[in-house]
Amino acid sequence: MTKESFNLDADKGIMATKRVFGEHSLMIGRFQPLHNGHMEVIRKCAAESENLTIGIGSAQLSHEVDNPFTAGERYLMINEVLKAERISNYCIVPIEDINRYSLWVAQVESLSPPFSIVYSNNPLTRRLFSEAGYELRDSPLYNREMYSGTVVRKKILEGEEWRKLVPKKVAEIIDSIDGVRRVRDISGGD
Amino acid sequence: MTKESFNLDADKGIMATKRVFGEHSLMIGRFQPLHNGHMEVIRKCAAESENLTIGIGSAQLSHEVDNPFTAGERYLMINEVLKAERISNYCIVPIEDINRYSLWVAQVESLSPPFSIVYSNNPLTRRLFSEAGYELRDSPLYNREMYSGTVVRKKILEGEEWRKLVPKKVAEIIDSIDGVRRVRDISGGD
Amino acid sequence: MTKESFNLDADKGIMATKRVFGEHSLMIGRFQPLHNGHMEVIRKCAAESENLTIGIGSAQLSHEVDNPFTAGERYLMINEVLKAERISNYCIVPIEDINRYSLWVAQVESLSPPFSIVYSNNPLTRRLFSEAGYELRDSPLYNREMYSGTVVRKKILEGEEWRKLVPKKVAEIIDSIDGVRRVRDISGGD
Amino acid sequence: MTKESFNLDADKGIMATKRVFGEHSLMIGRFQPLHNGHMEVIRKCAAESENLTIGIGSAQLSHEVDNPFTAGERYLMINEVLKAERISNYCIVPIEDINRYSLWVAQVESLSPPFSIVYSNNPLTRRLFSEAGYELRDSPLYNREMYSGTVVRKKILEGEEWRKLVPKKVAEIIDSIDGVRRVRDISGGD
Amino acid sequence: MTKESFNLDADKGIMATKRVFGEHSLMIGRFQPLHNGHMEVIRKCAAESENLTIGIGSAQLSHEVDNPFTAGERYLMINEVLKAERISNYCIVPIEDINRYSLWVAQVESLSPPFSIVYSNNPLTRRLFSEAGYELRDSPLYNREMYSGTVVRKKILEGEEWRKLVPKKVAEIIDSIDGVRRVRDISGGD
Amino acid sequence: MTKESFNLDADKGIMATKRVFGEHSLMIGRFQPLHNGHMEVIRKCAAESENLTIGIGSAQLSHEVDNPFTAGERYLMINEVLKAERISNYCIVPIEDINRYSLWVAQVESLSPPFSIVYSNNPLTRRLFSEAGYELRDSPLYNREMYSGTVVRKKILEGEEWRKLVPKKVAEIIDSIDGVRRVRDISGGD
Repeated sequence: MTKESFNLDADKGIMATKRVFGEHSLMIGRFQPLHNGHMEVIRKCAAESENLTIGIGSAQLSHEVDNPFTAGERYLMINEVLKAERISNYCIVPIEDINRYSLWVAQVESLSPPFSIVYSNNPLTRRLFSEAGYELRDSPLYNREMYSGTVVRKKILEGEEWRKLVPKKVAEIIDSIDGVRRVRDISGGD
Repeated sequence: MTKESFNLDADKGIMATKRVFGEHSLMIGRFQPLHNGHMEVIRKCAAESENLTIGIGSAQLSHEVDNPFTAGERYLMINEVLKAERISNYCIVPIEDINRYSLWVAQVESLSPPFSIVYSNNPLTRRLFSEAGYELRDSPLYNREMYSGTVVRKKILEGEEWRKLVPKKVAEIIDSIDGVRRVRDISGGD
Repeated sequence: MTKESFNLDADKGIMATKRVFGEHSLMIGRFQPLHNGHMEVIRKCAAESENLTIGIGSAQLSHEVDNPFTAGERYLMINEVLKAERISNYCIVPIEDINRYSLWVAQVESLSPPFSIVYSNNPLTRRLFSEAGYELRDSPLYNREMYSGTVVRKKILEGEEWRKLVPKKVAEIIDSIDGVRRVRDISGGD
Repeated sequence: MTKESFNLDADKGIMATKRVFGEHSLMIGRFQPLHNGHMEVIRKCAAESENLTIGIGSAQLSHEVDNPFTAGERYLMINEVLKAERISNYCIVPIEDINRYSLWVAQVESLSPPFSIVYSNNPLTRRLFSEAGYELRDSPLYNREMYSGTVVRKKILEGEEWRKLVPKKVAEIIDSIDGVRRVRDISGGD
Repeated sequence: MTKESFNLDADKGIMATKRVFGEHSLMIGRFQPLHNGHMEVIRKCAAESENLTIGIGSAQLSHEVDNPFTAGERYLMINEVLKAERISNYCIVPIEDINRYSLWVAQVESLSPPFSIVYSNNPLTRRLFSEAGYELRDSPLYNREMYSGTVVRKKILEGEEWRKLVPKKVAEIIDSIDGVRRVRDISGGD
Repeated sequence: MTKESFNLDADKGIMATKRVFGEHSLMIGRFQPLHNGHMEVIRKCAAESENLTIGIGSAQLSHEVDNPFTAGERYLMINEVLKAERISNYCIVPIEDINRYSLWVAQVESLSPPFSIVYSNNPLTRRLFSEAGYELRDSPLYNREMYSGTVVRKKILEGEEWRKLVPKKVAEIIDSIDGVRRVRDISGGD
């Protein structure tokens, strides 16, 4: 993504878009499932953004030990929780993996409303968007040992208390789609 | 995987989902671009649905004569117009073509929040969702000769008056992304 | 597309199919290679089914340490052994992986003659077909320590006695396609 | 593909396979649906072959005007009719299009039991298998004006008499899967 | 894609690359086959570039009426002719279609040595690279009625004089790969 | 890849190609990055070949810990170093993985100028090309402990002296594309 000259037209385009609809920023997660740590990040990013696009990564994966929920189920989780919290300046975009990093930024760009800021602490994500010329911002911090998808899935699997780690509506959705049993079935557990 | 079916578990799941989050219905269009006819449909479907999922079909296509806009640009059009109209009970989901109809319903199911009703007048769409056990509803009618993506794209290309055929915000978005010139460039026109 | 479901038309369809051609059941394996344990399962399933469809999973894989044989070679193994055992109520269907579990049942449905019963002990397979509304049956048991593809491939690789673990015709096929040398070559062994 | 030297090992392999299991020949069709013309070809090819592999081409397509039936439905048609005619020296293999002709022969080879003869009158098919070193045989002739998939689908669509053009069991299968209505639905007809 | 800020690092990178290895420019064609019109363009572009990358478009296609030759055969044509003409400041890169224009520039970027100038008269190509910030140059003109792949293929097919329309080495390559007969076979001609 | 008869036409074709353009041989590597060990091999293979095609394997991968550089960057490395060494009888061909070994040889054949000799010490590569009828030659040996992509990447990552392990121009290219920082960023290192 090495280009020599600054494309004035494209630049004017993003300026115009911003003037009309405000600035868009982007964050991407897998949300397997959406947990309280994610929500801390989303709340802060949404608060400091005019518009926040939340990308659901690895959208094609589901029914796997590390990816039990479909993109649609994860979409519902995010949407219900944000509505409940009266956050409204967001878009949700499922994004399938493309398995060649050189095309990944272009894919995100084609699926998301035009954006100019990217929140991420992931070095690869930062590198790829940075090589493509985006402004990077550090993603807000949260307690990663307490809140992580891995921990939530493990607790669901082992019958421990997981409901406190996720927003109430997420627990309701997981229950309503028979998600506990799914997590156990796909693990080959009992 | 949500069908009102013999499968008791799945069935109970969708019942539970519905009880908790209300009934979801689905409509799919290409929105190249979103025009006033689309908006008549969306307004009516949203009014009679608890939640309406709007699928953006052929999400992978852009920069083609019949598909000039990216999925992200179309997402922005729908989102901005619905916000402006104070409609809020909707989700927007870009859906890539899968080029094998036998898998298409499963793909839509995996990307969309669980739904139980499908709005469509397209015979193939109706057939596919009907074979999969969904409740089909006729899509509301509108003046298809006046409002159609084909007509809008043709008028953009030929420099005729197209702005009256689309919501005001769509025209603003098309202008802000230099869309008129894009439509002309990809047609090889001047 | 075949499920005993609320969908009356589809339901009548599967009823009609069953009435005309008998009930079809399905089992899926990788058969790398077909061994005596597989044959115990196939014999029992074929005996209690009107028609048995045998899916060859991961059909696209070959020339790998864990998947040395092509789908066509595995097809020949199954077909020759079943003919030799005078079993005739079966279909063989190579099935490529689709790498997104949410579409996998739809893919199996599109490639296989319509079926209504699935034999499997694999929790994920059971989960996926169960979410899609199929009747699941336990797959017959056999001595999994003695008979397993992993063991057969390991014995071929290490020059131990593997011929007793597979039907005689499978050994003949492996010999005729130079299979022993292939297993060793792709392992980087001598 | 052009290669210089005759691989002695591969050659000995096919010799050995042939000695043990007899010679295999291949024919490929789309069978949308299987009609009486196809059956003339299959009967003759099966009669003059030790083993005949019948490839179902464009296996991934269904629910299209020119490809209404799934690979599994087409598999059932062929299998039921051949059983009814007491033909038994055949294999049926669904083959997905790969959309790059340079790989197509390799794909057919990987999915089919090893074969050495190809029946085809199609110039491209003949060219591709001939460049790969296969023996080509002319496919038996039949009345192509009377029997063709295009004609059968058109008659189904227009409510004309199509049942005489296909084997009795094919008509029964089409009826049992509600195929007449499917052909009409996907054509947008009534 | 529209981005707001000029990435200084990427910019310094291309500056550094240029300083060390000179400026690279890019042209893309299908070369089915390479003809004298292509050569006029290549000669001029190579003369005015420090380094010229020649992309072979639709690299995955071959054995089709409009795309008879493989990417490898087209690579050989270009390489042999340029060597014969003592042009040496070029790279040849086969580029497969990606069927989503929004990713196409990123794919070309990932396969080609870093470049900063694009030669093209094709409005879509110009649009896509221009949206990505590249410097576009008009491709040199030649007599498009006399020299075109379509004309050359038609003359080959119909047995007319085509050898004068292509460089001598291209004719030799086409002869050596039995190309005339291939063009006819895949057209269903005699 | 089991075929019975030696295709005389194809054989004559390769003979004719050879007579006109000389014999082509093939070697394939990932070149992540090109190091001095690779160069020993290339020098020897190029010296004993009329024409050497250098395939860049896993061309689609980049920005991964084990595959940091794009195919285009690797192409530039090879091309610049060979020009500097005044080697000129080579072609460079990026080759994407196809993830099914049964098609891999056909893919290499379709992308590369026609070749008849393959250099490789990799047992799987040797097996696949040997099953397809190619002449295999041992790849020249070099000090694999000192020169390996793994070692070079590790030294780049850990800030040790890596420049002596690669040709001077490779170090310059890595510097000019900010490659050291990329290797560290994608490793999540500092």
